[in-house]
Amino acid sequence: MKIIEPTLLLDKKKCLQNIMNMSEKCRRNNLIFRPHFKTHQSKEIGEWFRGFGVDKITVSSLNMALYFAEDGWDDITVAFPVNYLEIDKINDLASRINLNLLVESPLVLYNLKKGLKFKVNIFIKIDIGYHRTGINPGDDKTINKILEEIEISDFFRFKGFLGHAGHSYKARSKNEIERIHFDSKDQMSELKNLYKQKYPNLIISVGDTPTCSLMEDFRDIDEIRPGNFVFYDYMQSMIGSCTSDQIAVVMACPVVAKHPEREEIIIYGGGVHFSKDFFLFEDGTISYGSLVDLHEDGWDIPFNSKQVIIKSLSQEHGVIQAGKEVFSRINIGDVIGVLPIHSCLTSNLMKSYLTLNNERISRL
Amino acid sequence: MKIIEPTLLLDKKKCLQNIMNMSEKCRRNNLIFRPHFKTHQSKEIGEWFRGFGVDKITVSSLNMALYFAEDGWDDITVAFPVNYLEIDKINDLASRINLNLLVESPLVLYNLKKGLKFKVNIFIKIDIGYHRTGINPGDDKTINKILEEIEISDFFRFKGFLGHAGHSYKARSKNEIERIHFDSKDQMSELKNLYKQKYPNLIISVGDTPTCSLMEDFRDIDEIRPGNFVFYDYMQSMIGSCTSDQIAVVMACPVVAKHPEREEIIIYGGGVHFSKDFFLFEDGTISYGSLVDLHEDGWDIPFNSKQVIIKSLSQEHGVIQAGKEVFSRINIGDVIGVLPIHSCLTSNLMKSYLTLNNERISRL
Repeated sequence: MKIIEPTLLLDKKKCLQNIMNMSEKCRRNNLIFRPHFKTHQSKEIGEWFRGFGVDKITVSSLNMALYFAEDGWDDITVAFPVNYLEIDKINDLASRINLNLLVESPLVLYNLKKGLKFKVNIFIKIDIGYHRTGINPGDDKTINKILEEIEISDFFRFKGFLGHAGHSYKARSKNEIERIHFDSKDQMSELKNLYKQKYPNLIISVGDTPTCSLMEDFRDIDEIRPGNFVFYDYMQSMIGSCTSDQIAVVMACPVVAKHPEREEIIIYGGGVHFSKDFFLFEDGTISYGSLVDLHEDGWDIPFNSKQVIIKSLSQEHGVIQAGKEVFSRINIGDVIGVLPIHSCLTSNLMKSYLTLNNERISRL
Repeated sequence: MKIIEPTLLLDKKKCLQNIMNMSEKCRRNNLIFRPHFKTHQSKEIGEWFRGFGVDKITVSSLNMALYFAEDGWDDITVAFPVNYLEIDKINDLASRINLNLLVESPLVLYNLKKGLKFKVNIFIKIDIGYHRTGINPGDDKTINKILEEIEISDFFRFKGFLGHAGHSYKARSKNEIERIHFDSKDQMSELKNLYKQKYPNLIISVGDTPTCSLMEDFRDIDEIRPGNFVFYDYMQSMIGSCTSDQIAVVMACPVVAKHPEREEIIIYGGGVHFSKDFFLFEDGTISYGSLVDLHEDGWDIPFNSKQVIIKSLSQEHGVIQAGKEVFSRINIGDVIGVLPIHSCLTSNLMKSYLTLNNERISRL
């Protein structure tokens, strides 16, 4: 494997292990496993999930749904408030797969109905505390209006309630994640109890990577939809969702300059490779990733992340504040590894993966 | 023009005007105009520059140089510390164009020499205050060592000194930009005076968008390399490099949800469309762009950027804190405009432009 420019390396073994862990957790807890494919966006990695019996998936756009539908995935949830301007894509998908859409307003259903030519399943999006989108779980009035809209149309089938505890990404301890998990679960349980008599098949769907990775109690939950766990990343290891050893992707970056007076190393690898997401330490320091040594079979554990900091990223440059010891042993022309802060955004920019066996894996 | 998903609109008129303004400034000041093409990365937009007599360009990677060399550009500066792991690309380019490389260490020249098969021009990269890369302008010892390395090889030709005052992007007033400009200029003038007797054809090359947009005194400067000015963006308008009316790109985003209790609007448009760069106001507020109304022929002036804030971006969602008035008149299904914070990163993610005449313009 000869690397000459920024390259996103994928350790397939770690990735398969991550998929297996989550898949077994679902089996143990009798959960439907509907992984979010927005992180990898790769038909080939989708195949690895099929190997664990996965046949239902989540995506974050209709374009992504079309990409995976082409590959035979026929039960797809688009976990984004339905954008009815894309009605042609919705009809295209609904004509050939089980398409599950998220709705949080009666008006959207009303508009959707006007253009629909095929049946779709509707999840009602509930705000379980993240406060990005969704209906307040106590807002019976809106929920009931949506259910009425669903019932008067032959094109809609009510599938259940769906929530996303995205605020777990801001947690910094297992306790915090536990609190968020039980809080979400309680709200969803209450809804389930309220509506299960009328809709005995309704599904409760939740699932962010931190809670799905760390929690074991999923009573009243029917389905989980984590995505990031397939690779994990530096952010998830800092939250505590994974160990740094479980992170399955690393950016390999050539070293192009060194500045002894500042103990700074310049790598070929910037905002167009990593994205600009960063980790904020409690003391206000920010870092755009975590340095690791690369070797033939993969990479080692990260350097101390308070001593070696990816200090800034411009379009193509990354600046590493290395400290004396690391500075002295890394040379221009070396290729070093950086665990990305946010693997979803990094892989979205890199557009392909290189496995440790030198296989190129493509993606959307 | 029917927009159904996040789309990067380009106002060709404004873009041509931006190119013309900079091109005329170069003519007035007798400067070589070597625009940085990393912002647009489009052969078609490159043609527009040719219309103004431009025949020398700057890029930020060898891959970008290869893309433009294919289109007949034959004098290209790669404004990035040379990465000699990419020696095959360097030889490929050097065999057919005038290739200008940046060097800041004798070691790199030494390694480069071992693999070179064709002549290249060498700029010595000077740190004029940004402290990202480059040699301290007072470091005669390193500069002279590099010049020695250049002289003993037939493959190298010394082209001049190159600097990038990237710290001007952190400026928030014309005064600050002026200070940075004169400071850079003074350092470069001194170098020119020191070396011009021995190298009468040496070139002084500088050029970030803020100083090139606002300054008029370029004495002792021979060449400028601004890039962002082709589109400008919200950040540049806040720095003062341009008026908001000069910004030539806007993201068109469908509105997919509204939350009256928080006066928040959810758009289809997130980190995978805009990038995660943000503007930090003095009071600590951050915003990921500035809202504008779209109409048939373009877009209006931005809403008050302290009252209407793009509060957060996740992968596909954008959250707008709209305030009462704006909230009440924007509806689900509308398509609204957002001036991007950083047009280089946004266009890198969007991968194409749609002009107001409905022409699709591709890019690398």
